[in-house]
Amino acid sequence: MNNKIQIFVPATVANVACGFDVLGFCLDQIGDGMLIRQVDTPGIRITKIQGCELPYDIESNVAGVSAKAMYDALKPKCGFEIEIHKGIKPGSGIGSSAASAVGSVFGMNELLGRPYDKRELTAFAMKGEAVASKSEHADNLAPAIYGGFTMVRNIHPLDIIQVPTPRDLFATIIYPQIEIKTSEARAILPKQIPIKDAIQQWANLGSLVHALHTSDYELIQRSLIDIIVEPHRKQLIPKYDQIKARAMEAGALGCSISGSGPSMFALSKGEATAQHVKDRFEQAYADTDIESQTFVSRINTQGIKIL
Amino acid sequence: MNNKIQIFVPATVANVACGFDVLGFCLDQIGDGMLIRQVDTPGIRITKIQGCELPYDIESNVAGVSAKAMYDALKPKCGFEIEIHKGIKPGSGIGSSAASAVGSVFGMNELLGRPYDKRELTAFAMKGEAVASKSEHADNLAPAIYGGFTMVRNIHPLDIIQVPTPRDLFATIIYPQIEIKTSEARAILPKQIPIKDAIQQWANLGSLVHALHTSDYELIQRSLIDIIVEPHRKQLIPKYDQIKARAMEAGALGCSISGSGPSMFALSKGEATAQHVKDRFEQAYADTDIESQTFVSRINTQGIKIL
Repeated sequence: MNNKIQIFVPATVANVACGFDVLGFCLDQIGDGMLIRQVDTPGIRITKIQGCELPYDIESNVAGVSAKAMYDALKPKCGFEIEIHKGIKPGSGIGSSAASAVGSVFGMNELLGRPYDKRELTAFAMKGEAVASKSEHADNLAPAIYGGFTMVRNIHPLDIIQVPTPRDLFATIIYPQIEIKTSEARAILPKQIPIKDAIQQWANLGSLVHALHTSDYELIQRSLIDIIVEPHRKQLIPKYDQIKARAMEAGALGCSISGSGPSMFALSKGEATAQHVKDRFEQAYADTDIESQTFVSRINTQGIKIL
Repeated sequence: MNNKIQIFVPATVANVACGFDVLGFCLDQIGDGMLIRQVDTPGIRITKIQGCELPYDIESNVAGVSAKAMYDALKPKCGFEIEIHKGIKPGSGIGSSAASAVGSVFGMNELLGRPYDKRELTAFAMKGEAVASKSEHADNLAPAIYGGFTMVRNIHPLDIIQVPTPRDLFATIIYPQIEIKTSEARAILPKQIPIKDAIQQWANLGSLVHALHTSDYELIQRSLIDIIVEPHRKQLIPKYDQIKARAMEAGALGCSISGSGPSMFALSKGEATAQHVKDRFEQAYADTDIESQTFVSRINTQGIKIL
């Protein structure tokens, strides 16, 4: 037996401003390549990792952990070999671990004739994601698997909602190559927040969901506000306010932290504006020694795909 | 000049579970009647109040205050006389003061040839509502004026969103005739809440908005949860847990506090289920000396109307 599948696993943006811990969307222009081979020898093996240094041990590799969770549940007679070609740098804040966690289970599921649906795949992938982030969450996994905008209403049991994607919505990403420790990004958040701020945040998330349904770009703009998390976490990203100002000056609908950073995302109506935001992002760290990458992406409504 | 208009001003439900301070919907079967007369003598006068005791002084009457706010802004040469026939008991928690505040400005606006749009009418009505509730809010006003489900994203400036109403959604109301002081209902709420609870609440509100857009009744059911306000305010309503249990046993999608109470609302799919909830509500206070009223209502997608 030597059945194999090659897949593209997209990068994703979680914590979309007012949608902290709930809302995410899927990118198109950046992602990992993975190759999954179905073999006779039982078990899961990671046979190649390119693009960055990650463990081959399947108990410590995110892709391995999620693969093993699915493998142990299904108990197939065959085995699987996994090759990972990382296009998304770990720690960039655009769903690197989620991509790895998703890719292995998606590929195995395809090779096995799709015994599991997308929700079940997300649940297996969550086991891998938990290794990377020390907590179970699905806000990067869901958009990688479903595509477009997703909300994770609940984790146990998993309740994932696909929200429509307005046709002209484009994302611009800037990834300043600094390290933010997940533990630090978490510790900086308050455990308690004022109820009046929470109300404002859920008014904005409710409105954003409505705006995505109705392609109301002006309402997207009015709603893409995060008064809970951004004020704390932005301190971890050099020049945050200036970069956000660049995006808004260039005509973006909104700009906030992608995941727990250090990447930032902007959403714009139309590719030209998104490109204009990218142009303004490119010089953002010019007077510093911080390297940065920028790119424009359509919202990827398909999600993970077979190449 | 003796131009007059007779209107029906509907009762409304605010604070719809996860939508505290933001989401509201409009009822059909209960409301106030108002008659507005355009007269030559300048100024605003309240000429009749039926159904309950309320002040005739326009500076202290909710309908008078909102009417005066609009009158002072527009400065028409004529005057207006207002008759109020209260069908909604003040303090019942289904938007009594909002109905009064809305009715006068809506009626005057019609008689004057609609110089103002719905958003502007809401802003004038907010001045009246503020007299009753000691704070400016629009979560009962907006559904009374727009009909259906509304979200108030922001107060200054007013940002009101009309969310679609699934066709088969019906409300059941129980109004236990006890008094809850607004000040007490407010004081019982915590100023600070755990961020993890806030996240769960906004996940539910985002999902509820999606569910209203997609007529996904199962998701409405999963989302109609309030973990922030209900645990505190339910203490003010006798037999709250038993009444809610009655609604859920009868097949309701959800049940929570209407406004700041004492009324409670349930939402159901289909009129038969809503009626079944009403039947179960009717005996809820049978073993107490609390009087209660119950009724079933379609969601009123039209809002306030001319008779």
